[in-house]
Amino acid sequence: MNDIRLSPPILKYNYRVIYADTDAAGVVYYGNYFRFFEIGRTEFLRELTGISYKEIENGGILLPVTESYCRYKASARYDDLLEISTSIVKLSKVSISFAHEIRNLKNGQLLATGYTRHASINRQGKISALPSFVLDKLKEHIKS
Amino acid sequence: MNDIRLSPPILKYNYRVIYADTDAAGVVYYGNYFRFFEIGRTEFLRELTGISYKEIENGGILLPVTESYCRYKASARYDDLLEISTSIVKLSKVSISFAHEIRNLKNGQLLATGYTRHASINRQGKISALPSFVLDKLKEHIKS
Amino acid sequence: MNDIRLSPPILKYNYRVIYADTDAAGVVYYGNYFRFFEIGRTEFLRELTGISYKEIENGGILLPVTESYCRYKASARYDDLLEISTSIVKLSKVSISFAHEIRNLKNGQLLATGYTRHASINRQGKISALPSFVLDKLKEHIKS
Amino acid sequence: MNDIRLSPPILKYNYRVIYADTDAAGVVYYGNYFRFFEIGRTEFLRELTGISYKEIENGGILLPVTESYCRYKASARYDDLLEISTSIVKLSKVSISFAHEIRNLKNGQLLATGYTRHASINRQGKISALPSFVLDKLKEHIKS
Repeated sequence: MNDIRLSPPILKYNYRVIYADTDAAGVVYYGNYFRFFEIGRTEFLRELTGISYKEIENGGILLPVTESYCRYKASARYDDLLEISTSIVKLSKVSISFAHEIRNLKNGQLLATGYTRHASINRQGKISALPSFVLDKLKEHIKS
Repeated sequence: MNDIRLSPPILKYNYRVIYADTDAAGVVYYGNYFRFFEIGRTEFLRELTGISYKEIENGGILLPVTESYCRYKASARYDDLLEISTSIVKLSKVSISFAHEIRNLKNGQLLATGYTRHASINRQGKISALPSFVLDKLKEHIKS
Repeated sequence: MNDIRLSPPILKYNYRVIYADTDAAGVVYYGNYFRFFEIGRTEFLRELTGISYKEIENGGILLPVTESYCRYKASARYDDLLEISTSIVKLSKVSISFAHEIRNLKNGQLLATGYTRHASINRQGKISALPSFVLDKLKEHIKS
Repeated sequence: MNDIRLSPPILKYNYRVIYADTDAAGVVYYGNYFRFFEIGRTEFLRELTGISYKEIENGGILLPVTESYCRYKASARYDDLLEISTSIVKLSKVSISFAHEIRNLKNGQLLATGYTRHASINRQGKISALPSFVLDKLKEHIKS
């Protein structure tokens, strides 16, 4: 998946960079973009489907990350206001892939793109279909 | 507890600062010293009592932090080798306090001092005495 | 400073707990409350004085943390919406102290209180008075 | 680069998982594997070439991450002792790629594989060849 393209619906969420996110090179630490991706996918679920990830978990299904990827194009810096864009790029009964773009909100510059893939498992760690109330809501909002 | 003094036995443990620990001011982020304190108290328990915190947990007792404090005297920087010194400064059946010093191993400079206090609780969240096999081991090694 | 009391003006800022903030005990990691304190003081400066910490830095003054303290009263959990309250409790030409309360926004439960103290230094690391445009703005808004 | 294969020389480095690394799912947070990768590549450089990344930086060359990837196969948990294996899988005058395997040291189970790619740039942010004393040292130890 070298070419990461978001497709509607896309959720945009703003995040302000704090010192804790940065490193001694003066920029956001590369590993912390995966925090931004987490914020993006959580708010995507909440805003576009009305379902929080916590509710899915309470229903007995977990969505652990099976793959994560990020390509860094330009640096995010302390106090930058970022725009995290998120869409679902792949969806099946037992897996979801989210794609992301991180931009500097002020000037629109693209800073990073990436994705995460998730398996749907039950509390025993076995692959298990997403509950239909989740899958139906997601399908309603995502053409994939 | 303005004056933090370690008393023997003291466990010394070395830690190499990575980029992830630092921030855009070029130094270790102030909140990350509490990671170093965690490393210090965990290795103190393992090395000086032969009991890992994980074993205490498996016995049904948790030691959540009830207070944490750090005083910053000089900066730790990327790639510095730190010496984390830890001792127990207070011990009762239902609480433990650890004190720490963080030094630059190369020149011995004192960078930070601090402490954490912990309550002993059971899985229901109620105050509950430390198991006697832990308390006895700790008393054996700590005069308090 | 055992008794931490905020005094007006108080800035309230909401923050949603993500997985990255939590630990295997199922609650927010104790060291991550210092991230919340950073968010609180940064937004306090921005909202109540119109000055961002970044502007202060650009003027050649840094405000490194010299002391940090947190008392934990109840746990914050994944997906909780927190209310970070911040006020300045001490102010001089060469130092600032911020106090904080962290509450669960849903039910108002107090989760943690704490403070940080900061020295005003120049780029050479020497104690140096806060710029008057900052100090005047702060005094205007803070009776201390 | 779907198939990540380390090739000699491989540096192995042990790391003990702390609470700060884990999340409320009871396992290491997916973004924190990139901390482990940083530890791996830093110690690879130090141990196998005698050059610290800090020295490269002091020589005016930075190696920012341009891509990062991780595939998660099994969970790492609190107090697990991990073995971080690192090798260089690609090397040119202006870029380096490191590959990693993370294993549970106790039973050898493979937990995660991944890689990072780095560009060689100067302090002005322009692509700039690695210093020959670094490149020569790396070539000496790496057949690529």
